[in-house]
Amino acid sequence: MNLINKEKKLANIILKELWPLHRSITGKGLRQSLDIIKKYIPIKKTEVPSGKKVHDWIIPKEWVVNDGYLIDPIGKRILDVKVNNLHLLNYSSKFIGEIDKEDLKDHLYTNPKVPHAIPYVTSYYEKRWGFCLSHNDMKKLIPGKYKVNIDTEFINGSLSFGEGYLKGSSKKEILISTHICHPSMANDQLSGAISSILLYRRLSKIKKRKYSVRFLFLPETIGSIAYLSIKGKELRNNLIAGLVCVLTGGKGPMNYRRSRQYSSLIDRSAIKALEEWKQENNSDQLPEITEFNPAFGNDQRQYCSPKYNLPIGCLTNTSNTKTDEYHSSLDNLDNLSVDGILDNLDVYQNIIYIVSNNKTFITLKGYGEPFLTKYDLYPTLNNIKLDINNKDLRAALLWVLNYSDGTNDLLKISERSKIKFSNICVASKVARLNKLIK
Amino acid sequence: MNLINKEKKLANIILKELWPLHRSITGKGLRQSLDIIKKYIPIKKTEVPSGKKVHDWIIPKEWVVNDGYLIDPIGKRILDVKVNNLHLLNYSSKFIGEIDKEDLKDHLYTNPKVPHAIPYVTSYYEKRWGFCLSHNDMKKLIPGKYKVNIDTEFINGSLSFGEGYLKGSSKKEILISTHICHPSMANDQLSGAISSILLYRRLSKIKKRKYSVRFLFLPETIGSIAYLSIKGKELRNNLIAGLVCVLTGGKGPMNYRRSRQYSSLIDRSAIKALEEWKQENNSDQLPEITEFNPAFGNDQRQYCSPKYNLPIGCLTNTSNTKTDEYHSSLDNLDNLSVDGILDNLDVYQNIIYIVSNNKTFITLKGYGEPFLTKYDLYPTLNNIKLDINNKDLRAALLWVLNYSDGTNDLLKISERSKIKFSNICVASKVARLNKLIK
Amino acid sequence: MNLINKEKKLANIILKELWPLHRSITGKGLRQSLDIIKKYIPIKKTEVPSGKKVHDWIIPKEWVVNDGYLIDPIGKRILDVKVNNLHLLNYSSKFIGEIDKEDLKDHLYTNPKVPHAIPYVTSYYEKRWGFCLSHNDMKKLIPGKYKVNIDTEFINGSLSFGEGYLKGSSKKEILISTHICHPSMANDQLSGAISSILLYRRLSKIKKRKYSVRFLFLPETIGSIAYLSIKGKELRNNLIAGLVCVLTGGKGPMNYRRSRQYSSLIDRSAIKALEEWKQENNSDQLPEITEFNPAFGNDQRQYCSPKYNLPIGCLTNTSNTKTDEYHSSLDNLDNLSVDGILDNLDVYQNIIYIVSNNKTFITLKGYGEPFLTKYDLYPTLNNIKLDINNKDLRAALLWVLNYSDGTNDLLKISERSKIKFSNICVASKVARLNKLIK
Repeated sequence: MNLINKEKKLANIILKELWPLHRSITGKGLRQSLDIIKKYIPIKKTEVPSGKKVHDWIIPKEWVVNDGYLIDPIGKRILDVKVNNLHLLNYSSKFIGEIDKEDLKDHLYTNPKVPHAIPYVTSYYEKRWGFCLSHNDMKKLIPGKYKVNIDTEFINGSLSFGEGYLKGSSKKEILISTHICHPSMANDQLSGAISSILLYRRLSKIKKRKYSVRFLFLPETIGSIAYLSIKGKELRNNLIAGLVCVLTGGKGPMNYRRSRQYSSLIDRSAIKALEEWKQENNSDQLPEITEFNPAFGNDQRQYCSPKYNLPIGCLTNTSNTKTDEYHSSLDNLDNLSVDGILDNLDVYQNIIYIVSNNKTFITLKGYGEPFLTKYDLYPTLNNIKLDINNKDLRAALLWVLNYSDGTNDLLKISERSKIKFSNICVASKVARLNKLIK
Repeated sequence: MNLINKEKKLANIILKELWPLHRSITGKGLRQSLDIIKKYIPIKKTEVPSGKKVHDWIIPKEWVVNDGYLIDPIGKRILDVKVNNLHLLNYSSKFIGEIDKEDLKDHLYTNPKVPHAIPYVTSYYEKRWGFCLSHNDMKKLIPGKYKVNIDTEFINGSLSFGEGYLKGSSKKEILISTHICHPSMANDQLSGAISSILLYRRLSKIKKRKYSVRFLFLPETIGSIAYLSIKGKELRNNLIAGLVCVLTGGKGPMNYRRSRQYSSLIDRSAIKALEEWKQENNSDQLPEITEFNPAFGNDQRQYCSPKYNLPIGCLTNTSNTKTDEYHSSLDNLDNLSVDGILDNLDVYQNIIYIVSNNKTFITLKGYGEPFLTKYDLYPTLNNIKLDINNKDLRAALLWVLNYSDGTNDLLKISERSKIKFSNICVASKVARLNKLIK
Repeated sequence: MNLINKEKKLANIILKELWPLHRSITGKGLRQSLDIIKKYIPIKKTEVPSGKKVHDWIIPKEWVVNDGYLIDPIGKRILDVKVNNLHLLNYSSKFIGEIDKEDLKDHLYTNPKVPHAIPYVTSYYEKRWGFCLSHNDMKKLIPGKYKVNIDTEFINGSLSFGEGYLKGSSKKEILISTHICHPSMANDQLSGAISSILLYRRLSKIKKRKYSVRFLFLPETIGSIAYLSIKGKELRNNLIAGLVCVLTGGKGPMNYRRSRQYSSLIDRSAIKALEEWKQENNSDQLPEITEFNPAFGNDQRQYCSPKYNLPIGCLTNTSNTKTDEYHSSLDNLDNLSVDGILDNLDVYQNIIYIVSNNKTFITLKGYGEPFLTKYDLYPTLNNIKLDINNKDLRAALLWVLNYSDGTNDLLKISERSKIKFSNICVASKVARLNKLIK
């Protein structure tokens, strides 16, 4: 079985394990999810206690769900959290009692625009109780008295996050951050964890890693704020580049959202990797490049807050504006494309390759071209039988030799020449071995 | 009667008063026009004496028209300045005498391209006598002797201009400059005066004006040169932004011609205001942005001469290259759209709003996003029932909080986010009140 | 006979003289070619001895061809260098002997993609013997023993290049460099020599040349490296702008490849000249602008090597990527358009005009426009009878006056205004005569 098939099989196994858990930004479901991830890659769990101040925020109390369902006027149990954990408003407070259909309505959340889906609704920071259901189901509710049984608690506990770390030869690091707090969301949640796990496993097989790579599995927003509050300074000192890894399934097109810095190394590397993907894949889905948007999107907002302003972008396989399934019961395993995840994963890996291999050289033979024949680096016939690959590498070499003047990094040379970064990189190694650049 | 209707009525009244006057770059018609304007807004008249050196120019003598007409061979009085003041070549010198049709032709000005219109022709700086008439009428002239009666004088008098001033809390000022020297031209002349008067009246109702606003009513070219010669240094010290206000009627599309500085505050504000106008009006007439052109256009050439280089653009409702009526008897009140003037006036007002409210803030909570729920600035539910307006304001707030790092002014944030400037501005007030930015 | 016809006639005469010579990067054919050029313009020949180190390269031994042909199994003499000098692999080593058809094949060079043409193949830096022939002819070779008679020698001699120099009032210079080492190639070789000769003759008629102009006739690559090695420092000190002059025939479109500096004076001037050519010629062939490419093209690679980085571009009438004839026997005189050479020559001349006449002025009357009527530089009537040419010159004058603030050169003013450079230039002379700028 080849690597792709192995990865696909593994992805499906992990997805099935993670799917049913009832996650939130704190609590048992989140902790269980981290434990499952730990079966596949080594991660360290950290607990941040409820009530701790993290920057302008406070870690909330842990949400404990003992039970949650509704009994309709004819005694039928409906909207049971055990059937679908989206049925309970996430972070719902406790309510046990009888209520008239008319009053119940204030506690029911639906999305009329996608009437057959249960929406995913949260109320982390204001106490409310409630249920979520499809708009169609709400319309079928019969009049009468309903029995509500929401048995939840808020306890002093902690917020959990997981951290993987692949040591490189340098302390400088690349960050891959994914959120893991949504209950039963496939693309907008689990895809990111799958990509991170598979990426960790791929990178762990590389013998000489230049930069260390850190993997974070966090609850969204409060998780990255907590992380920054605890380790932000260290991260800022060591970070070379980073990606928020979410929505890596879906039908495409791939979307890269720039960091707030706009054209830092991560931005240039991601754009280059997408261009190479486009050249090599005959896809009718052109990758999109969008700008950092502080009003939109995930933990990138925290990493790119003005005083951190970290070089962290966001690469998805499908932007959330392109999918009807977003934040609803339709974002399920049936609709998740594991092929899309693996396709996208190649781009992640290439980005890390580019970031890790980018360097700036300076010519040692800059007056005219070096006499490449002397170094056995040039065809001695001028005719047309050279095969294309050799020709590309020869072109790469000439580009590297000409532009290595101390101001252009390899990525810049690859951008200007439109030659694949890996070819430019190989050419630079050949040139250095021959003492043509240093 | 609502504001728009009041303004429309007022515009029509002033237009009828100003229309018949026989204006030139000096003299009675110009002075009478300033007196009429003074009935509607307080302006101060200044007289610059004939012969005074103003930069490289000299104020010409005043032109006095006592009479001007032609009597044809059968004794019919034609081309009478009292019938249409375009008939007399503007600044024509005196000539009383008989002349043969063939010799007369050297003194007749027509425009064969628009053969049914009387062209507007001037000869300020070389002594000539002559009449202007439609090309069609010229062809109908019968052979024979014509009696010319042009009774004009050049006297030592002065050049007049008017100046309105709305004091703001700052000495720094915004300039609105219009020319008022053309006789009986509706769009290319009176529209600018109407816009200036209405704008003055609108702005005078604003209680707290940050910047002072200066309104100039000048004869074209020599007027602005005279003004710069007298007050140019002061203007340069105090000027924040300015607009030459001409051709504000017409059928569109609106046109903004940049200042010589290219992207000064006035340029960015005008372009933003036109974009907002485009978003809010379902017009098929896309506003145009053109570059400063020293060979084309009006007093802007003087304000943007290289040693002044003032941040002054030019906003029209229709560029003069887009209209057949330009500088002819067709540019009359029947062809002038007062609706166009009012439409365009909203853009003028928005530009001044943007210029006046632009500021740069710096975050007080830049490590991660502030916990907006704490300040009651964020929905506590994540679901989809928020109305669009609130959502826009929330987005504006997140943009302001993220980009207020001391390097981005509110206009820049509005440009990047494509959110209306006024929303960005409101968001910045909310953020400041909550001590999130300073 | 007008200039164009004279030039056309001369071009055809020189082409016929140069065509049959058996050129290479050294040797008799090259020397004879320089002698022919010397009949038409004064050039100085320089000999660089074999074995001399030139930067990273060494001048190769001279190649002497005494004879070169093949005798097929039935005794027929084929592939005779005396019939077509492309038949012998350029720089082929000596081989006299019998060889079987199968073994012969390793020494035959064809181009299957253009099967009816003899390819032009060289092996300067590795010893090989061989013949070149059309792919069709190779397929017709009969089995059996072939007699090879390649009687060549490598002797200690020298590499030759020619240098023309038109002295200007300044030591600063413009370089025109062409290569002259290909045997029997019309567009990719001789066109450049023809253009250089005609350009020299045109420029020699100009009385006041500001800059000196240097013309180089070199073998490709090794020639420019030798030149740079000997005179590179001096060239770098004196060079204002330069062009590699090759492929000036062909069917178009014209192509300008930028210097490595990207927007130096030569780049801006060439792009301007091509734009003016486009405006004045109703061609459906839009000129192309491409970027410097170190993996592609000729001596420009040497002039633009990183430590020289000279402002030298390359203007062709047809880029070599656009022609099937490139480096084959199809690139012959029948396929060469002398009209194309002359058309292209006008652009060369205009580039040199622009480079030579570009200056930066500073206004002496920058507060408002100067009163141009006083200097007799402005129409005293405002009406519409001015002819377009006058109007363009008037516009040019206003642009020059406004933008002459010490930061914009005339070329910049021409770029911004889109007014022809020569009009801008004339306007600047008028302005200077009138003491409006200095």
